This record gives sequence, C-alpha cells and structure tokens, in this order.
Amino acid sequence: MTNQQALSELSSLLGDRFSAGKSDLDLHGRSETHFPHLPPDAVVYPGSTKDVQAIVAICARHRCPVTGWGAGTSLEGAALAMRGGVTVDFSRMDKVIEVNAEDMDVRVQPGLTREALNRELRATGLMFPVDPGANASLGGMAATRASGTTAVRYGTMKQNVLGLQAVLADGRIIRTGSRARKSSSGYDLTSLLVGSEGTLGLITELTLKLQGIPEAVSAATCAFPDIGAAVDAVIATIQSGVPMARIEFVDIDTVAAFNSVNGADMPPLPHLMVEFHGSPQGTEEDAARFGEIAGEFGAGNFAWASAAEDRNRLWKMRHEAYWAILQTRPGARAIVTDICVPISRLAEAVEQTRADIAESPIPGPILGHVGDGNLHAILLVKDDADMQVAQRLAGRMADRALRLGGTITGEHGIGMGKLGYMEAEHGAAWDVMSDIKRALDPLGIFNPGKVVRQD
Amino acid sequence: MTNQQALSELSSLLGDRFSAGKSDLDLHGRSETHFPHLPPDAVVYPGSTKDVQAIVAICARHRCPVTGWGAGTSLEGAALAMRGGVTVDFSRMDKVIEVNAEDMDVRVQPGLTREALNRELRATGLMFPVDPGANASLGGMAATRASGTTAVRYGTMKQNVLGLQAVLADGRIIRTGSRARKSSSGYDLTSLLVGSEGTLGLITELTLKLQGIPEAVSAATCAFPDIGAAVDAVIATIQSGVPMARIEFVDIDTVAAFNSVNGADMPPLPHLMVEFHGSPQGTEEDAARFGEIAGEFGAGNFAWASAAEDRNRLWKMRHEAYWAILQTRPGARAIVTDICVPISRLAEAVEQTRADIAESPIPGPILGHVGDGNLHAILLVKDDADMQVAQRLAGRMADRALRLGGTITGEHGIGMGKLGYMEAEHGAAWDVMSDIKRALDPLGIFNPGKVVRQD
Repeated sequence: MTNQQALSELSSLLGDRFSAGKSDLDLHGRSETHFPHLPPDAVVYPGSTKDVQAIVAICARHRCPVTGWGAGTSLEGAALAMRGGVTVDFSRMDKVIEVNAEDMDVRVQPGLTREALNRELRATGLMFPVDPGANASLGGMAATRASGTTAVRYGTMKQNVLGLQAVLADGRIIRTGSRARKSSSGYDLTSLLVGSEGTLGLITELTLKLQGIPEAVSAATCAFPDIGAAVDAVIATIQSGVPMARIEFVDIDTVAAFNSVNGADMPPLPHLMVEFHGSPQGTEEDAARFGEIAGEFGAGNFAWASAAEDRNRLWKMRHEAYWAILQTRPGARAIVTDICVPISRLAEAVEQTRADIAESPIPGPILGHVGDGNLHAILLVKDDADMQVAQRLAGRMADRALRLGGTITGEHGIGMGKLGYMEAEHGAAWDVMSDIKRALDPLGIFNPGKVVRQD
Repeated sequence: MTNQQALSELSSLLGDRFSAGKSDLDLHGRSETHFPHLPPDAVVYPGSTKDVQAIVAICARHRCPVTGWGAGTSLEGAALAMRGGVTVDFSRMDKVIEVNAEDMDVRVQPGLTREALNRELRATGLMFPVDPGANASLGGMAATRASGTTAVRYGTMKQNVLGLQAVLADGRIIRTGSRARKSSSGYDLTSLLVGSEGTLGLITELTLKLQGIPEAVSAATCAFPDIGAAVDAVIATIQSGVPMARIEFVDIDTVAAFNSVNGADMPPLPHLMVEFHGSPQGTEEDAARFGEIAGEFGAGNFAWASAAEDRNRLWKMRHEAYWAILQTRPGARAIVTDICVPISRLAEAVEQTRADIAESPIPGPILGHVGDGNLHAILLVKDDADMQVAQRLAGRMADRALRLGGTITGEHGIGMGKLGYMEAEHGAAWDVMSDIKRALDPLGIFNPGKVVRQD
C-alpha cells in the first residue's frame, strides 16, 4: 500500500509530531455526530507552513490522502479521513501572529480557536464576532464557511476573512487577499478557499476582520402564540432595519429541553432569543423598537437580560441546546440538519418540517438562526431503524429547502452527509466545482470524498 | 481570418441585433479614460440568456474573442476588446425579473443600470445601496467587483450579490448561489465570478441583496487642518462603531475644483464628506458622535445637509468630482488611480502620493472612500510626456499600496491598466488564477488580455 511509504517518510521528517498510535487515530476518526468511526492511517502535527508544505509534498508524491483537522467540531464529518491517509492536525499552529488594533484586523494560525482568540483580544477592546457555538478552530471555521448566531449582524466567515495563506496540492504556498478592506484585484481566491473544506488547499494562516466590543449589550427572550407569528416578527424586524446582533428561534420542544435540562422557566410556546449591540442609548432604542414589532405579532413573556451573567447564561443555554436536546432521549445520538431558506419561506419550512417530524416515530426539536433563514432540526436516533427515518426526514428537509429557493446547508458544510444533494442544488455548477478541483488538485489528494463529484 | 466566419454566423443568427456598423464599433471601442480606441469587429445585442449561449457557442467554435459590455463606464477599459472579436452589449437585457420585498432581494438582468433599478424599487421602500458614482450596469458592477461611497456601510458587490446566472465558455449555463442569505454548500462560485471581469463567464442574471430606504438621512462636510487629522478622525470614527453610511475624503485640490467649477464655498483645506442613515433619532446621535470625534481632531466649518435637495447637491458634486477636476485643466484627459490600503496607513499613502504628485509637472487632486482605505488620484494629462509622468506616478502608487499592505485596485478592477502589477500583488496566487482560467476557458475566448497572465 503506497500510503505506507508516505507514512514512513513523514515519520522520519516529523519525529514525535507524527503519530500512528491507536488513541490518536481513534480520536481523529470520531465526529461530533452520527458518522461511522473512520480513523486515518496517521496523524501529523505541523508547527509551521513549511511543515505543511513538506507534508503535502510527501503525500502528493505517494498519492496519499491529506485531510485537515482543526478542533474536530464539524457536524458533517468534514475532517474525517474517508479514504484513509494522513490527518493534518493544526492544534500546534495556534498562535495569534499579529493584532492590528487600528485597522481592526488580526493574523492568526489556523489551529487557534475562536474562544482563545477572543481571550487574547480582550485587552484591545476588539472581538472576533463569528460564533458557531462550538469552540471551533478558525481554520476549520473558514474551511466550512461557518457562521452561527451573530451572522445576521456581522456576516459569516465569507465576510470576515480578509485573506489567507494556503498550501496547494502541488506544494505552492499562496497568499490571497490583503489587509485592505476591499479589492478588485483579480479572482477572489479567498472566497474560493473559504468553504472548500480542505479540498483545494490547506489553510495555514488567516487574516480576519475584527469588531469593537460593543459598549452596551442587552438580550431578551419572548414567546409567540405560534411559529408563523414568531417568523413574521423576524421578517418585520429585519425589514425595519433594527440592527439585530442575534435573533434566534427555538420551538416548543427545544423550550421543553431548556426547561427540563437547564431549569429554565419558559412557557411552552415558540420563542425568539434576541441580542442588541451598540451604545447604551442605541441598544435601548433598538430593544424598544423590537419589543413594539414583536408585540404586534402577539409576543409576550418578555424576559430581559442586561447583566453580563444573565446574558451569558442565556447564550450558554442556547449554544448547548444540542446537548440539552440529546439528554431528552437518553442513549440517543443526533443528526443535526441545517437548511437555509429565504426568510419569507421560513414559516413554511419550519411548519412543514415540524409536521413531518411529528408524523415520524422520532423526536426532532427545531431551532434556528432565523434572521438568516437558517434552520436546524436535531433528530434523535437510537438504532438503525431510527437512523433510516432520520435520513429520510433530512432528505425531505433538503428537498424542501431547494423548493423554497434555499440551500441544503446554511453553515455546517457538505462533509460526509450532503454530497448526495449537491447535484440537486447546483446542477451544472456542481460540475464547475469539479473542474476547479481538477485544476488545483489533479491527483485528488486533498480530503477525497468531499464536496465535488466522486469518480 | 477566422473571426469573419463567426461574424457571418452571428449576423445570420441575430439579424438586426448584430452590428458591424462604424458608429457601433467606434462607440464600443471607447473607454471613459485614457485608453486607445479599440473597436471590436462586431457588436451583438442579446435579448436572453439563450441568445448569449448561442453567441458563445459560435465564437467558441471559431475561437473568436468575446467581451461583455454593460454601460461602458469602466475606468480601466475592462470592456474594451483588446484582441478584437465580438463585444456582447447587454443593454437590451435590462429588466427587473422579480422583486422579493419580504426577503429584500431582487433578480435582474445584467444590462439594468443601478439608477434604473433604484427607480423601479422606489415604491417598495427598498434600495440597492452600492454606488460607484457612474450609472453603471449591474452586470458590469458585478464583473468589476465595484463599490463606491457606500461600501463602508453596505459592502461592495462581493457582499451584495447573492447569486448569478452565467454562460461559460463551453456553453454551459450555470446558476450560482441561491436566495438564501448564507450557504456552506460547496465552492463559492458567485464570488469567483464577481470581479472576474468577464474572463470566466458572461453574467446573464443577478440576484442582489436590497436594503430598506433609511427613514432619515443626514449629511455633512467638515474641514481639517491637515490630511493626517482628517484620516485620524476617520480611524477613530470607524473604531467607535458609529455606522457611517458614507465617509469621503477630498484634498485641497479637489476642494479648489468644487469651488471653481461647482460654485461651492469650502475653505481651502482637506475635507471629509459624511452621511448617516437610520432613524431620525439614531442619525442625530450618530451625527453628534461623529461631530465630537472629528472635533477632537481639529475639524471645523461643519456644513450640515438634512434636506434631500442639499444632500443630493452635495453627492452630485462628489460624484462629478472627476468632471470638475477635468475642467481645471482644459484639454486634459485623466488617469484615475485606485489603491486601497489598511486605514492605519492611509495618511502615509495620501501624503506620500501628494508629495510625489507635487514634485511632478502634472496636477493630480486626491479623493477617496477613506472608510475603506480606498484612494484615487485624478492625474491630468495633456500629451505623451504628461502620460509618461502619470504612468510613473500611478506605478509608484501601486508599489506604495503593496508596501503598505494594500491592493493595487480597490474598486476599478484590472482591465487594461493593472495587469503589470498583478504578479507583484499576488505572486504564486496569480498563477492559480491562470489555472482557474484555463480550467473554465481553455480556448481563452472570454475577454482575452485581461486579469490573468498572458501567454
């Protein structure tokens, strides 16, 4: 097996930063969700871009698959080595290289996590706002085009990566973008690499936009009589131009999980969870404006959280909804779906999905980043029969997203779970993705099995 | 000559929507600025995507160059047929296809201009905010990754194009993106086509993000003792999080042109021109906050414009600065430079450029979208000797931009003027652009001579 030759060369090159130990392979064969255990043949721990270049050169020579690994938080198994080979674990490339406070940007290594970055930034008064919930690595977030609760205000990784350094399959090291805020200088290679899930290049450095830590932050939850009312309030709020920092939907089943697992005391109704960032006066006005709009759609049970600890508790609960929901069905694993539709179609998407799940034998609470039209059902499965049900439900959600003018994944990526829907979403454009993949990685060594059509 | 066969087939196909008449060729051989007259061999006027597909098929068969043409407002000659062939004029594909007011998006044909779109949108309370000054076509703006005065608030075309339909060199029609606000579904082909200047595909449809027309708008000008103070005020304003809708710099020479040509009455000092969008109370607070910050940097001579007619006069003057500056040197043509740097380096960039121009024999007023770090010098040339001086000054500006961590073009694109700087800006990444070009347009029929390395 040719991978063996690659492994032996990598072992010589990297010494103790090469591992084929069982626990390392096991750890890097696991995903957050339901995918089978898929250990790579070896794990390597580069310390620099040059290391990555040398690793790729060896793997290319032996046509050995190379899969990048950040913090292992992908919900679609994007970092699993589907075809074996070498997993490149970036955890030792986790430094802040340079903070430019005046320009509100930062250069980091890909293994740095978003929480670690925000800790390092605190003294500067700046923050990196993209927040997928999990403490993901920034390289992984870029590779996934991740987003989360704050995208409605600050955008996704697409809007927040100014530039990248990457190692390509033929060993070239490229820099894309610059520290300028905008550019019309040729093809947007930064955007091409963001969301490419390690299939076109390995990201070895990122330049990220930062935001000022808001002077004032306030948050709230409120209840709505039904899903349609909650979603209509979201549409009206977005159209009114109130600059929401977060606007999250949770359905009755998610509320039930919060109440039983987190000891929350929320009425059994669909809720919105919202946050406002700005000046003290500005957030107060925004909150009042939101309150008025939500009120027009029957909102009640407003619970305001201005103190930092109340807000932290609120968002911790929201971020850990996945774990709370898992606990409502002991012994279950979860399939987390992830569609995104135009917000005018969101009520339909939620209602049809709820009805579909209600008719099925498995539970599936629904929550979402509704300011973006992004929706997750957390389908709880215990056995193969459940899994088949869940896959069918997930498939119907994907079809529904496309029928409603949306996308099969708002923020989790394609990974191992979504390849089967790519043709339906993209048609001929999916072939164009293959053309680009062939041009940049003709041997197909980077994360084989993901994103593009498989021969 | 093989182009002749293509022309004869196109003439049969299109009838009176094919033209090889002298006036048509002349018109499509001219640019807004200093480039030589480069008429194509023919101009075609497609009425539909199918027409574009048929045109491309004929041209591909005969390897005849195909260059897209929107409103002809490129400042870098991006739409000039450098190697002859066929210019595809999109002026008959100028319809609004579908407005989705609830989702705040719109689907349009590429020949529609931004002003025509905003006229059609007025009754909906929505607007398309990207404003490069010229009444450019939306297809051309996307192809150029254009921006302008409002990018500091609303982003460039990169952030405002949700999806595209395009015809590729092999005749495939693809759709990229969707109406969802975000997606992690595969490679970001929308961003790849935006800014590709018609070298990878011809855009035949665009889905654009819209914004609510702000409830209240107010604008102001103010004077600063020197360039450094003006730029420092910009940095402090951006960092403070005041959501500026526009923040424009004009130097003393631009002010002189406004005074002499537009009858303005501005003190002979560097100025900022700013605009605030929001609620009546919000804009008032933002304006007050900006006033305080600017005051700390010595700003004076505040002139506020809240009435629509005053604001329109102000921005008309700013948008037509190019023409006013041209009039200050009768008989001159202009080279408009366009660099973008991190804002912390902007004062240096402006001061060094002013000093460089001051030492030269030609005038070159400076103005810029300083919230983005974007800077233009309008170099006025009368003869070949002037032109050589201007080219040298422009070259030094590009070098300076790169030295300061920026880009050779913030918003005007590469076109005919910037190819020579691409290697310096992008290094190995420029070769990657060529790889992509070869993968998608192996015959090199789309806008040959532009963006990528020329063999």
